[in-house]
Amino acid sequence: MAAKFVSERNIKFLLYEVFDVESLTEYEYYQDHNRKMFDMVLKAAVKLGKELLFPIFEEMDRRQPELLNGEVKVHPSVKTIMKEFGEGGWISSRVPFERDGEQLPSLVADVCEFIFAAANYSANVYPSLTFGASHLIESFGSKELYDTYVPRMHAGEWQGTMALTEPEAGSSLADITTMAELTNKGYYRIKGQKVFISAGDHDAVDNVIHLMLAKIEGAQAGVKGISLFVVPKKRIDDSGKLVPNDVVTAGVFHKLGYRGCPIVQLSMGDKNDCRGWLVGEPHNGLKYMFQMMNEARIGVGMGAAAMATAAYYASLEYAKSRIQGRKVGQKDPNLPPVPIIDHADVKRMLLFQRAVIEGALALIMQCSKYVDFLKIRGEVDKEKYHLLLEILTPVAKSYPSEMGIAAISQGLQCLGGSGYCDDYPLEQYYRDCRIHPIHEGTTGIQGMDLLGRKVIMKDGQAFKLLISEIQEAITAAAEYKALDKYAAELNQVLTNLQKVTYHLISVAQKQGPEAFLADATLYLEFFSHVTIGWQWLLQGIAVQKALDGGARKKDFDFYQGKMFTLRYFFAYELPKTQGLAKRLLDDDPLTVEMQTIFFND
Amino acid sequence: MAAKFVSERNIKFLLYEVFDVESLTEYEYYQDHNRKMFDMVLKAAVKLGKELLFPIFEEMDRRQPELLNGEVKVHPSVKTIMKEFGEGGWISSRVPFERDGEQLPSLVADVCEFIFAAANYSANVYPSLTFGASHLIESFGSKELYDTYVPRMHAGEWQGTMALTEPEAGSSLADITTMAELTNKGYYRIKGQKVFISAGDHDAVDNVIHLMLAKIEGAQAGVKGISLFVVPKKRIDDSGKLVPNDVVTAGVFHKLGYRGCPIVQLSMGDKNDCRGWLVGEPHNGLKYMFQMMNEARIGVGMGAAAMATAAYYASLEYAKSRIQGRKVGQKDPNLPPVPIIDHADVKRMLLFQRAVIEGALALIMQCSKYVDFLKIRGEVDKEKYHLLLEILTPVAKSYPSEMGIAAISQGLQCLGGSGYCDDYPLEQYYRDCRIHPIHEGTTGIQGMDLLGRKVIMKDGQAFKLLISEIQEAITAAAEYKALDKYAAELNQVLTNLQKVTYHLISVAQKQGPEAFLADATLYLEFFSHVTIGWQWLLQGIAVQKALDGGARKKDFDFYQGKMFTLRYFFAYELPKTQGLAKRLLDDDPLTVEMQTIFFND
Repeated sequence: MAAKFVSERNIKFLLYEVFDVESLTEYEYYQDHNRKMFDMVLKAAVKLGKELLFPIFEEMDRRQPELLNGEVKVHPSVKTIMKEFGEGGWISSRVPFERDGEQLPSLVADVCEFIFAAANYSANVYPSLTFGASHLIESFGSKELYDTYVPRMHAGEWQGTMALTEPEAGSSLADITTMAELTNKGYYRIKGQKVFISAGDHDAVDNVIHLMLAKIEGAQAGVKGISLFVVPKKRIDDSGKLVPNDVVTAGVFHKLGYRGCPIVQLSMGDKNDCRGWLVGEPHNGLKYMFQMMNEARIGVGMGAAAMATAAYYASLEYAKSRIQGRKVGQKDPNLPPVPIIDHADVKRMLLFQRAVIEGALALIMQCSKYVDFLKIRGEVDKEKYHLLLEILTPVAKSYPSEMGIAAISQGLQCLGGSGYCDDYPLEQYYRDCRIHPIHEGTTGIQGMDLLGRKVIMKDGQAFKLLISEIQEAITAAAEYKALDKYAAELNQVLTNLQKVTYHLISVAQKQGPEAFLADATLYLEFFSHVTIGWQWLLQGIAVQKALDGGARKKDFDFYQGKMFTLRYFFAYELPKTQGLAKRLLDDDPLTVEMQTIFFND
Repeated sequence: MAAKFVSERNIKFLLYEVFDVESLTEYEYYQDHNRKMFDMVLKAAVKLGKELLFPIFEEMDRRQPELLNGEVKVHPSVKTIMKEFGEGGWISSRVPFERDGEQLPSLVADVCEFIFAAANYSANVYPSLTFGASHLIESFGSKELYDTYVPRMHAGEWQGTMALTEPEAGSSLADITTMAELTNKGYYRIKGQKVFISAGDHDAVDNVIHLMLAKIEGAQAGVKGISLFVVPKKRIDDSGKLVPNDVVTAGVFHKLGYRGCPIVQLSMGDKNDCRGWLVGEPHNGLKYMFQMMNEARIGVGMGAAAMATAAYYASLEYAKSRIQGRKVGQKDPNLPPVPIIDHADVKRMLLFQRAVIEGALALIMQCSKYVDFLKIRGEVDKEKYHLLLEILTPVAKSYPSEMGIAAISQGLQCLGGSGYCDDYPLEQYYRDCRIHPIHEGTTGIQGMDLLGRKVIMKDGQAFKLLISEIQEAITAAAEYKALDKYAAELNQVLTNLQKVTYHLISVAQKQGPEAFLADATLYLEFFSHVTIGWQWLLQGIAVQKALDGGARKKDFDFYQGKMFTLRYFFAYELPKTQGLAKRLLDDDPLTVEMQTIFFND
């Protein structure tokens, strides 16, 4: 087992030097916090990761969940994890003091979750989903729903889930068929099937609370007929006892990875006795669910970045200790062999991983900061931060997911044959990470969300706001001699992004929506590289500030590493936009014109 | 289980229309063959794949090899497979008539192996390695060695292996420590360890014959001290009985995938009683081994292409049958949903897979044709085809390996959540394929082989020969209106490749070998895209010829599909060379300058 799964130094660099979390404490809402407290919280998170989560990372994979006697049996440690996360206040870390939460800035709470996910992604899903579900009840549910469910969810006694997907409606929520029939007793009778529900049933908690999409009888077709319900696995009867709510676990999926957490198929109402309680107004379910969905999407990006981070440190450790071959040009076989990290090609693979993971984490934290701003500067700039979050969400979900796979694959490659064997953790990371471009909306869906909705929403307002944030960083970076070259390069690519965007909008006008969105996935990739370039400039600025301000000698190597990784990103990664631009500016609608029959033979 | 794992139509297109295998029968060596026979051989290969190999593809994964009582136990079908492949003449299909082989053109024999590997990669490794090992004995061993081993290997009774890698010498063969001590009885006493030996021990054969690298006592350090030995698991004693040869299976590795075939650790000479027989001259071992290694490298590329092909057909089948969502622009939820293959983004993912697998298979077959030419036109052009094979081998190994992973990952993505579950075969392909960039020389090693040896060998002779082959195709393609645009594009990229190559040679002169080879992996990627573009032009020419010659109506859709895939390659894949060129023309030697200490923290 590798010794390290995150860099505390890098986390503090981002938290304090790049995103200046301390400045948040100048606002009333966060005034009770200070750096000393944040450091303590971080330390506690690392300790929890190290002692509780990381040691069972492999074991949870090897002993995957199974359906036994109608209930999913998970690793016994999950019980401890939910208890510790509940008691330690980790599930409610973002919840206001007035509701017994810790009222931590998202920047800090999210970084803690990053640490947990790096230690053991599957393990973190249980508490993380529970918070997302409780937050949905808190935001849109009645006081009664809140009182019934939320305190026990915060305590880690009850699991929360999001239950959207159905066997015949995966990415197409418009087609869900789970029905809700109003009764005269204040609840609805639920009937239907859900699939791929993460933590949808297990034996480590007393109850599972599904935040479930369903259609009220008579509702209109499509997404406008969808409502949101709380559907518990067990409901409270008149005597206050938990009794079955006719939610049956029909199966548990056997997966490539992410095996520490079950994904299950649920059947509601087989005995016509499944009760659900409406959250908010009827037919507004999808709108509500998108709060949780957007949080979950950024959460997937964070988990992907975290997993790739742990994989990076495992491959780095191997590359430092594995002795093999001589440096190019040293032909004499009598010379002693060197650690493989001395080979330029291995350093390239490590720098690639680092450019991805540190760029991705920065982007996630940029989003966290906007979430914080939305809370504390909402009066003035609510629309601004809302729009920035809207446009960044598909990027924050997809870049870490897609590039995390590539990074982990390079990490595995650093180990050669050993990377392919289960004596080392790389093969598990490689299996685990493949879920990320799929769950919470595939990469294809994210691309269409970005180009088809977010970029053009409100006359391009979100797009313009982001451009101006990036330009601000470019201007600031250009002030430093060590960065002006990279500032100029990002500026050029940003101009290309605008050019590509306007071109695609003209395609929409001339060729219609199908041609417009045919390459949305490539557009997302282009857009992501610009966004990550921005995050690297911000990190470069922080490094230069520190060096100008007389950084401590012991930090010098860290800053050097940052600058090399920044150089790597601009030399190897950002140029990938050139090929993407060529395609995106090309009008040949070949994927639209291609016909199914041409795939025959 | 998917119904189809290869396209017979595509194989025949490549065999007859692109590479004109029939023309080989005009040469004396292949004069006993004809198209009718080739068709029969293909049909038999498909039948064997369909009936014997494909049905146990999943089962061989689920019941992975285990070490029991000192011997590796494999799936019981392996015995049948070796027997059928031996009796059917598949192991000796490339062997001359005079040695009881089938004397098939490599083009045909290789395509049959492609079919087997697509049906079940792991299963095909057993006979394939056996041929490689027997071919090495045939090429360089004594008559006695030949008579002792080869006939039983051809019969599938004895397994062959290549035993190079050692615990402390993976990619660096110069450092192997397995020793061979000459005795006065005609054999050597062998002592050492080997790891990661595919099919290195199993219970489906009577014996395992290792073609093993070792150093004769007193030999010089480095690769020039390496000799090649035949080291059988069991040797024949004076009475003609098989007795143990002190080769002990020390362990079997548990792997991410490729689980149908064991890779093992071997310990030779623990009792000081392991005998090995020298092949050819002392100290020439690596040179000999490179015959098998080069065959094996192209074989890995073929296997990677085959695996990605099977994955493509599985994802295509799903995309045709899975109903989900409506086409972009069809907002009405009352319209019926469509098969997902109707979505442009899904067609893009399928076309990507197809561009990769059909481009890769064409490149493999291009190599096969050069192997045939080397046999039949060797008198005139021996040097030419030898050099073309030398320069194409790292590409034929790496492009299918690296891009096969990307293709399979896109195939998995087409299935969404189902792709992540083991109810469908995509997750297994995704695990299986990850071995290819590792075994028989990592992608990093291939890059250095291409740029550091093959491109510059004999004053760039191999490079120039390949350029002129590609230019010939460009000129021919430019004659067709439907292709001239693509011919011009490839010509442009070919010019860029030359520019990049000359630039790197100037880097070698100015900055030395380390900077020269630092980005050899990127150079390999660039080079590969040009090579695959060439193969797509060749396919385009064959399509245009067929259409001009009045193709049969039932072939029309197939040719349309080919042209769309060609368009896809030129629109989406070839432009990736732009970003690569930017980096390769950039002089910042950052991966050379990066230091280990900067990776701390």
